[in-house]
Amino acid sequence: MLTNRKEIQIEWGDCDPFGIVFFPRYFEYFDACTNALFHRALGVKKAEMLQRYKIAGIPLVQASCNFFVPSSFGDVVHVDSCVTEWGNTSFTVQHKLYRGDVLAIEGIEKRVWTVREPNEPYKAKGQAIPKEVIAKFS
Amino acid sequence: MLTNRKEIQIEWGDCDPFGIVFFPRYFEYFDACTNALFHRALGVKKAEMLQRYKIAGIPLVQASCNFFVPSSFGDVVHVDSCVTEWGNTSFTVQHKLYRGDVLAIEGIEKRVWTVREPNEPYKAKGQAIPKEVIAKFS
Amino acid sequence: MLTNRKEIQIEWGDCDPFGIVFFPRYFEYFDACTNALFHRALGVKKAEMLQRYKIAGIPLVQASCNFFVPSSFGDVVHVDSCVTEWGNTSFTVQHKLYRGDVLAIEGIEKRVWTVREPNEPYKAKGQAIPKEVIAKFS
Amino acid sequence: MLTNRKEIQIEWGDCDPFGIVFFPRYFEYFDACTNALFHRALGVKKAEMLQRYKIAGIPLVQASCNFFVPSSFGDVVHVDSCVTEWGNTSFTVQHKLYRGDVLAIEGIEKRVWTVREPNEPYKAKGQAIPKEVIAKFS
Repeated sequence: MLTNRKEIQIEWGDCDPFGIVFFPRYFEYFDACTNALFHRALGVKKAEMLQRYKIAGIPLVQASCNFFVPSSFGDVVHVDSCVTEWGNTSFTVQHKLYRGDVLAIEGIEKRVWTVREPNEPYKAKGQAIPKEVIAKFS
Repeated sequence: MLTNRKEIQIEWGDCDPFGIVFFPRYFEYFDACTNALFHRALGVKKAEMLQRYKIAGIPLVQASCNFFVPSSFGDVVHVDSCVTEWGNTSFTVQHKLYRGDVLAIEGIEKRVWTVREPNEPYKAKGQAIPKEVIAKFS
Repeated sequence: MLTNRKEIQIEWGDCDPFGIVFFPRYFEYFDACTNALFHRALGVKKAEMLQRYKIAGIPLVQASCNFFVPSSFGDVVHVDSCVTEWGNTSFTVQHKLYRGDVLAIEGIEKRVWTVREPNEPYKAKGQAIPKEVIAKFS
Repeated sequence: MLTNRKEIQIEWGDCDPFGIVFFPRYFEYFDACTNALFHRALGVKKAEMLQRYKIAGIPLVQASCNFFVPSSFGDVVHVDSCVTEWGNTSFTVQHKLYRGDVLAIEGIEKRVWTVREPNEPYKAKGQAIPKEVIAKFS
């Protein structure tokens, strides 16, 4: 199972008046981590991935996160990301964010391999994930 | 059970290259909705709430979201928010985001009534939620 | 000269560890204010504006901001926005953000009426702004 | 004159429905670049810098940006940042963002070395920048 590690520098602007990361920023980090994982698996950037497979994106149907330990600006953390389950049109990505050796945040995304409905630019539907895509994650 | 409704205008800058709301923005909306709910219940803004109860914030230990229907810039949606459970130091907030009559997104936040550890500005711990606070939500 | 006023509630998540609005958020507010101004002038939302005039957007070539007075979460401010200059393909929008009667922030955007280059989705060029559009701002 | 180079990966979530970077994100990048420049000059992270010099932050009084060439998700750009002017309490930072060899964006920030007013947590005032700080940038 392919796991991608991405290093993230926590920025001042990611933090709230409490002084810790404003929690929606973790979901932004995880979105970037999913894209980095696909980049590594498929060997192409997201823009090329969308063109090659004629999809509009891989939007989410579900996201969840457990916050164990807060982080603050200046911290450098890393995230290990992998696909834990493949469905027909959907898949699940797990992200584990570490501060040093400590598991600080754990996130789960359920996403759909999505094409636009013809003639309805903002409507979309799931499509079967190509077997060749799935194969590249093992 | 006190429910607060907040209207949200989806902005161009909230949307991604797909043309739909970038999903971490929903968690930002929900954070604002929780603050609006507490404002309504307690009758004071968050800054005053933090001072009055000598807390540093109400950070999350858990967040989850189901995305049923996407939204796009120009859409005006509304969110109904309420506290569904009170623990000793933690509580659960439920958010339902509607496009017209359609339930588009459902989010859950588990948050902690949090004080700073003395002399350790970025360390924090839960504290018992005052009974008077809980009473104002019923 | 048409001026649009938009009320903005400063959110917790817009603020940084200093406790004041993280300055890039003002540019987000101003982007929303420009869209609201065009909505009011043209009577249609941005998505319809893009379709009606066959443009891809109104991206910026220049932005600047003077920060006189900081704001913090819970503040409700208002922004007065107007187009101060029309060129052939570009135009200038001025935003004045007030806290009560105090001018807190002043921003200027220079934007271009932009179409996509055929067959090059991320390339774009300016196009003459329709006279009927300009007329609606006077 | 010390110049710091920072590499930035443009993320999907930084881009708007046009498919290009939503312009306020550039100001976020530049804020991170200023912090990286100070980190390099002073040898400590921002949190330590704030403690060491007993300041609350280095907020902006002015920001401006020229957008020459757009960028999109997947692009890797770099930013060269330096302080171009030191006043008594304020200083000016210049950022040049390059896509390969092409100057894509140029930004200017004017910031103030800022302390909190005693007993007024959200009020702040400028203070003379220590000579030892300035010396580390030459």
